Amino acid sequence: MIRNDDLGYPIVIGNSLRSELRHFLHDRDTDVVVLADRNVAPLAERLTKGTRGGVIVHRFDLGERRKTLATLERILDVLIESGVERTTTIVGVGGGVACDLFGLAASLCMRGLDYIGVATTLVAMADAAIGGKTGVNLARGKNLAGTFAQPRAVFCELDALRTLPYARLREGLAEVVKAAIIEGGRFFSLLEEVAALPFRAWPWAEIVEESVKVKTMYVADDRTEQGARETLNLGHTFAHAIERASHYRVSHGAAVAVGLRAAGLAALKTGRFSRIEHGRVLTLLALLGLPLRTGVDPSEILASLSADKKRRNGRLRFVLPLAIGDVEPGVEVPTRVVRSVIEACVTPPSAREFV
Amino acid sequence: MIRNDDLGYPIVIGNSLRSELRHFLHDRDTDVVVLADRNVAPLAERLTKGTRGGVIVHRFDLGERRKTLATLERILDVLIESGVERTTTIVGVGGGVACDLFGLAASLCMRGLDYIGVATTLVAMADAAIGGKTGVNLARGKNLAGTFAQPRAVFCELDALRTLPYARLREGLAEVVKAAIIEGGRFFSLLEEVAALPFRAWPWAEIVEESVKVKTMYVADDRTEQGARETLNLGHTFAHAIERASHYRVSHGAAVAVGLRAAGLAALKTGRFSRIEHGRVLTLLALLGLPLRTGVDPSEILASLSADKKRRNGRLRFVLPLAIGDVEPGVEVPTRVVRSVIEACVTPPSAREFV
Repeated sequence: MIRNDDLGYPIVIGNSLRSELRHFLHDRDTDVVVLADRNVAPLAERLTKGTRGGVIVHRFDLGERRKTLATLERILDVLIESGVERTTTIVGVGGGVACDLFGLAASLCMRGLDYIGVATTLVAMADAAIGGKTGVNLARGKNLAGTFAQPRAVFCELDALRTLPYARLREGLAEVVKAAIIEGGRFFSLLEEVAALPFRAWPWAEIVEESVKVKTMYVADDRTEQGARETLNLGHTFAHAIERASHYRVSHGAAVAVGLRAAGLAALKTGRFSRIEHGRVLTLLALLGLPLRTGVDPSEILASLSADKKRRNGRLRFVLPLAIGDVEPGVEVPTRVVRSVIEACVTPPSAREFV
Repeated sequence: MIRNDDLGYPIVIGNSLRSELRHFLHDRDTDVVVLADRNVAPLAERLTKGTRGGVIVHRFDLGERRKTLATLERILDVLIESGVERTTTIVGVGGGVACDLFGLAASLCMRGLDYIGVATTLVAMADAAIGGKTGVNLARGKNLAGTFAQPRAVFCELDALRTLPYARLREGLAEVVKAAIIEGGRFFSLLEEVAALPFRAWPWAEIVEESVKVKTMYVADDRTEQGARETLNLGHTFAHAIERASHYRVSHGAAVAVGLRAAGLAALKTGRFSRIEHGRVLTLLALLGLPLRTGVDPSEILASLSADKKRRNGRLRFVLPLAIGDVEPGVEVPTRVVRSVIEACVTPPSAREFV
């Protein structure tokens, strides 16, 4: 079991965390309400069994298309109907969407109840559950409404990864690669070493730990995303535009993978990044089965970029890699370059891009 | 023009505040999006005319029944469609519902945009716009979801009071009386002095200033309502239960007036409050045309009380007056007393209650 306290609350990483969770809840000595994505409701039952007060697990059908204010309202209604008080602790069990929605519901219910996140997917462990960002999608884009709300604790239940379908694991792998590009060094080469191994042989505790460490490092001093935290958006400005332009038919993980290629290309085209390191990133993404190209219309992606919430004074800003392990936030890239990058991402990389 | 800085941002009270607002916005040097309750859209136009960037006033049909997540979503969609960026300042113009909804939308949009409130009703000036509480109603009750989000400034535009219909002025008068009971002294006797005068002869600047001072005093050290701020809920636990039990047919102001009587009665019945001071409160409420009784079924009010968000460990707690100018929060009142108080509030006060 690994514990990270960089954010002032424990992030616990390990297998079969039931007793850790129970002790943590027991020490808090409050009523508990458990919310779970229906997919992991049995796991949520097992993890919270024996918690005082005979916990009921409330189940919700989630998914990126249900990450709306309407679903939020259902969750809030269930919380109120279940008799929460201001001292109640909410436990949310699930993946990225669950973290964002349950965390938002807890932060809004009675203007803020204590929240504990139990992450059951790689994307939640590596990204969504860490850092206190919650949100829902609006008609015009992803995560356009939400709060900054730090949880009381996060539990990354590695057991859940064993049964996670590859399609969902892949979502998280894209975030892990992103973290490894930011961190560089041993983390990136570890991924290169294990990339060809079956997932069951992966050192998950170490990989989740490293991913969490990258996230907490940037979040710790910048909880409301004024500056340094932007670094974590590497590949994400492109990714969100692709997802939106595809009306969310392209998954977040697939979009981030293409977004990482796009950020690398933009850095390459503006003389910031080396062709060799760009090639290492592309190779790693490909070995992990992540896509390097998208079928979405480039002009739609461009249009969608212009609605991104990370604009400032109307100009598009990106996080670009300078090297593996060195990333620069807030780079204004000329529209001409952005366009050519997006157009390139419609086709697979040429041999030249790979070197 | 009066200015209160107790909360670390200006609360400006005065007539014709257009130039003050314009200077404030000019100094901030950001894009501005204006949201207004349709009722006060012309005033919002006048107040923001000449603001840089050719401000458009977005109008919304509001009202307590529209204080929902569905309306919030419309407001958020309009903000995104109007091209807000993270640096944009939102100006919200209107009464209590507008303050709560526009403030919530600003605090959620892109996880938090800067917000300036322009209060155009007495309830907003005396209460809703001050203190950074935002919210919407859920199926089970009022203000059950929201945020704590401090605005950058609040402008109390006294001009708006001149044309405010009596029914809406009355909403605020109940909050003003509540503040005067908490404050006591000169504030309460000022109200007794002017109670019989026509409203146009009232010293509004002074009355709003005093009301704001009471609110800021309790909010300043307790922004997230852990303790002292609860004092401001005098009469409100009863009031919210009445409103909810009436399905919001009883207005907030009328409910607060009855709630102030109920709190006084509960204090009287538990030996905390004197009959003479209770009588002074009732007389003031009556002179201002505020109701002292409700037609709502007492058993419905009781049922609704038990869903109140200010419960702790399942027990109902009230703020009770000990004297005019001395109020005690967090008093647990026996259910028997609560029941008899609510039953009393169905009929007008007897001469004995009035002494």
